[in-house]
Amino acid sequence: MQSWLSSNVSVPRRKERLYRREAATMRNSSRKCARLALLSGFFLVALFYFWKPRSKEVDISSRQDTPIKKLFTGKIGDATNDYKDVPYHIKEEVASRLAQNACVCKADEETFHLPLSNLLFPHVWAHNLDQAFLEFHPDPESVKQHRADEYNNFKERSYNPADVLHVAEANSPLQYPTQGVLVRPLKTIIIPGLALKEETRSVHMVSLTATLGSFDVAAKVDMVSIQGVGEKNMVLSSPLLSALNKQLQFVTYTNIVFHPKTADTIQFATKDHQSFFTIKIEHRNNPKLYNSGYQTEYNITALVTIATKTFLRYDKLKDLIDSIRKYYPTVTIVIADDNEHPQPVTGPHIEHYIMPFGKGWFAGRNLAVSQVTTKYVLWVDDDFIFTANTKLKKMVDILEKTTLDLVGGAVREVTGYTATYRHTISVEDGGKEGDCLHIRLGYHHAIKGFPNCVVADAVINFFMARTVKVQQVGFDPRLARQAHLEFFIDALGHLHIGSCSDVIVSHASKIILPWSKTDVQKAYEKFRYSSSATNAKTHNEIFYFKNRFKCMTSQ
Amino acid sequence: MQSWLSSNVSVPRRKERLYRREAATMRNSSRKCARLALLSGFFLVALFYFWKPRSKEVDISSRQDTPIKKLFTGKIGDATNDYKDVPYHIKEEVASRLAQNACVCKADEETFHLPLSNLLFPHVWAHNLDQAFLEFHPDPESVKQHRADEYNNFKERSYNPADVLHVAEANSPLQYPTQGVLVRPLKTIIIPGLALKEETRSVHMVSLTATLGSFDVAAKVDMVSIQGVGEKNMVLSSPLLSALNKQLQFVTYTNIVFHPKTADTIQFATKDHQSFFTIKIEHRNNPKLYNSGYQTEYNITALVTIATKTFLRYDKLKDLIDSIRKYYPTVTIVIADDNEHPQPVTGPHIEHYIMPFGKGWFAGRNLAVSQVTTKYVLWVDDDFIFTANTKLKKMVDILEKTTLDLVGGAVREVTGYTATYRHTISVEDGGKEGDCLHIRLGYHHAIKGFPNCVVADAVINFFMARTVKVQQVGFDPRLARQAHLEFFIDALGHLHIGSCSDVIVSHASKIILPWSKTDVQKAYEKFRYSSSATNAKTHNEIFYFKNRFKCMTSQ
Repeated sequence: MQSWLSSNVSVPRRKERLYRREAATMRNSSRKCARLALLSGFFLVALFYFWKPRSKEVDISSRQDTPIKKLFTGKIGDATNDYKDVPYHIKEEVASRLAQNACVCKADEETFHLPLSNLLFPHVWAHNLDQAFLEFHPDPESVKQHRADEYNNFKERSYNPADVLHVAEANSPLQYPTQGVLVRPLKTIIIPGLALKEETRSVHMVSLTATLGSFDVAAKVDMVSIQGVGEKNMVLSSPLLSALNKQLQFVTYTNIVFHPKTADTIQFATKDHQSFFTIKIEHRNNPKLYNSGYQTEYNITALVTIATKTFLRYDKLKDLIDSIRKYYPTVTIVIADDNEHPQPVTGPHIEHYIMPFGKGWFAGRNLAVSQVTTKYVLWVDDDFIFTANTKLKKMVDILEKTTLDLVGGAVREVTGYTATYRHTISVEDGGKEGDCLHIRLGYHHAIKGFPNCVVADAVINFFMARTVKVQQVGFDPRLARQAHLEFFIDALGHLHIGSCSDVIVSHASKIILPWSKTDVQKAYEKFRYSSSATNAKTHNEIFYFKNRFKCMTSQ
Repeated sequence: MQSWLSSNVSVPRRKERLYRREAATMRNSSRKCARLALLSGFFLVALFYFWKPRSKEVDISSRQDTPIKKLFTGKIGDATNDYKDVPYHIKEEVASRLAQNACVCKADEETFHLPLSNLLFPHVWAHNLDQAFLEFHPDPESVKQHRADEYNNFKERSYNPADVLHVAEANSPLQYPTQGVLVRPLKTIIIPGLALKEETRSVHMVSLTATLGSFDVAAKVDMVSIQGVGEKNMVLSSPLLSALNKQLQFVTYTNIVFHPKTADTIQFATKDHQSFFTIKIEHRNNPKLYNSGYQTEYNITALVTIATKTFLRYDKLKDLIDSIRKYYPTVTIVIADDNEHPQPVTGPHIEHYIMPFGKGWFAGRNLAVSQVTTKYVLWVDDDFIFTANTKLKKMVDILEKTTLDLVGGAVREVTGYTATYRHTISVEDGGKEGDCLHIRLGYHHAIKGFPNCVVADAVINFFMARTVKVQQVGFDPRLARQAHLEFFIDALGHLHIGSCSDVIVSHASKIILPWSKTDVQKAYEKFRYSSSATNAKTHNEIFYFKNRFKCMTSQ
């Protein structure tokens, strides 16, 4: 601006001073303006940067009680208390099968003692875990309280409104979805199946109420008035029932309170009737698929990793590896090793992991399985020997073609005796003292199409499984020495388990005369089978505290 | 017998011969009897031993279609096809929010280019994962087919009848439970809430039909006749409605076809009406509780294990350990180490695991976490430094008091810049080409009671989490080099995630002038940041194949 003034016009001195003063004023103003603009700019930027629409706070401390829940709990109470005066006679053989929430820890009574009776009629043993664990504990009351607190927290975190009992009222004019409605977190869906079926009246009215979301409509129908659009409570009314019902086909639900896995209980009501249904709020189950190559024949190397743990038995481990390589030269073998003085275990497709000395059996299993990058993992013990009967394709086949997650094989001792170690496991409610765990020899069903295979809950320690599923269950690293069924107890409800007797691995001979044991063998047995008191204490703690059992019965 | 004959009586020789013959005959008969008894004994034993009641075979090949499902799918079709003639006007702003099962891979349009615009208004990038992965693949059609096959198998295995849409019919005289009914596998329950509410007639009749179980009654009510007791189809009828309804309060369901996690769809019908509801067949969620001792103050050593992975940065690892020990002298530190030439890392409460050279980042993370035996695990990178602001008790506190499974902290660079790296993640259905993954900076909500904490879907690599939950999600060992958000993508729907900005760990300085880098630093950077083409290919494969995404948009 200054240059413009001085270059263009010649003016008298007084006017020049005037102009100079004006120019100075204008410069000052400009500077002020510029400063103001700059400050405003910064202010706007700061405002934008720091002001994000503060979404409502969420209370994530406890999720079990909502106002809506109280409404329908009352209605269920009414529904089940009717007909008090009608007499009935208990049918004992059925009533006795009902869970009482008070399981009793009872062994079989010994009815007769024939030779071999335990072989033919395996006796059921009962083990009072609570007594066993608590009686040596310095402060049993505190432990009980601690377990109760941990369990309550666990239940609060696992609580899902989709598991609560709902009863559909009879003779209600309301039509609504009772299951199968799902919305991804913070997304919108149309609620299917809503309708009102009542006789003609001057006004037909319905209302919808939610807790974690709001309602709207994806299309508008004439002659229907709607209040509460975009709110948690929406009321629709119309003199025409067909218009109202058409409008109800466009009602949407938007989840607005974020939670990755919960449900919203919706009340759908008209003047004299109420119904309740659930909208699940979840991410859909994301798959974890493995690209093992598209081939007509099973490519065992691409599909399977063999996993094992070793301790003080490098000779047996070497025999195992040599036997695997006869039939599967390129399959990856993962070895977890907690020896005090680890030796190298090398070779193509061998992964050797060194752990702290004596870290333990299940820690090693969990480690080995955590490293597997193929669709299936085959567990073997380090003293197994592969033979021509160890046909892994059979295991892959049943896993590919059925809903099984894990399939056990058979282990053949040097005597010829072959074991599948099939067990069934069930849990019975026991109230606040803990539940009862029941383990029995046997299986549930044969499997159609697989004549040598059955469905069970636990199998022998030679099995192939879906890697993702086994990783999800895991081997509890707190179990340092002997453990086996604990994995299957943790797997209850998570793994669909089978057992095929025609996939056989051999067990290196255990028939060793005491005077011919090597020092290494003696050290191994001492380590594995000693410290039984500590071992028992750990097991009791796992069953009593971690799994919350008070009793275990087994054969 | 012979001695008796010869000792007691003196008889004539002919009679003696007779008696001898009789005795011989009797002896022969006895021997035959004895042999027969023995054979029968063995036969009975063998029969008992080998004859177990052969339970029906189970078909576990596919579980999606049942006869009952066809019945109610038809009814839902009817329910949603009514009112075709009523006109409507689409409400665009709502309709556009509905998932179309056809997500589009779209970046933001560049509307303006101010300096720092990406900082203030982070641009959304779109990445076509299917193109990126398939265009360099030798046989893209096979890969697509393989992925589709794997996904279909996954869906079949995950299918649960409890997820199928059901709609309650209006004006039905049937009352029945619509959710919340659960039976443990092979057990028996009373079905709650069944009733018939109709006007008086000569005979009131209801029927129940199941697929995986049978019906019975726990008590018998007079004047009610029942057909099909113990069968999959049971019919109850009575001239007295109150008697029928009292009887309905005692109806039991017994699961007879074993499956560890499924549901039976039950049809409950009367002459003119049908209703459908689900009985879940599941083991209840078995807890995995940790006995960390019952104390008033948080015992960090008993509650928390610190886990990390190290590679070529033993100096930084040592600084990390020293800094931890200033504040937490007895907390266990688990270290996964895939160096080519591992060095010893020793000290009390340190567990050092040696992996095959270069096995990788996420393999090491999965290993470390697989070894944790405390309730919580704290993840740290090997170049972090603990300070007085690294208050682990705050993290424990929010995990103890809320439903969060994982809480991230903040990482402070040497410049003073502190990052929480909060992101939100969502998945949009995309049909058979795959879904769309959307990652944005930011969070969902603030957390009531914890002023510096928010709920998000992904956080920075400094977090404390429930050990069991993190082990269940896992770190995919296929991700060898750079990876971070992949864990949170796998966690979607499984972990409730938070982030608190007031628990701060420092990051060892990364400001190193190029000419002052040590050989080790150069080797580290070369290893970590090189092979980016291979790295990108692995990432694309993981997103495209494993997670089945076709597109990823992010900021």
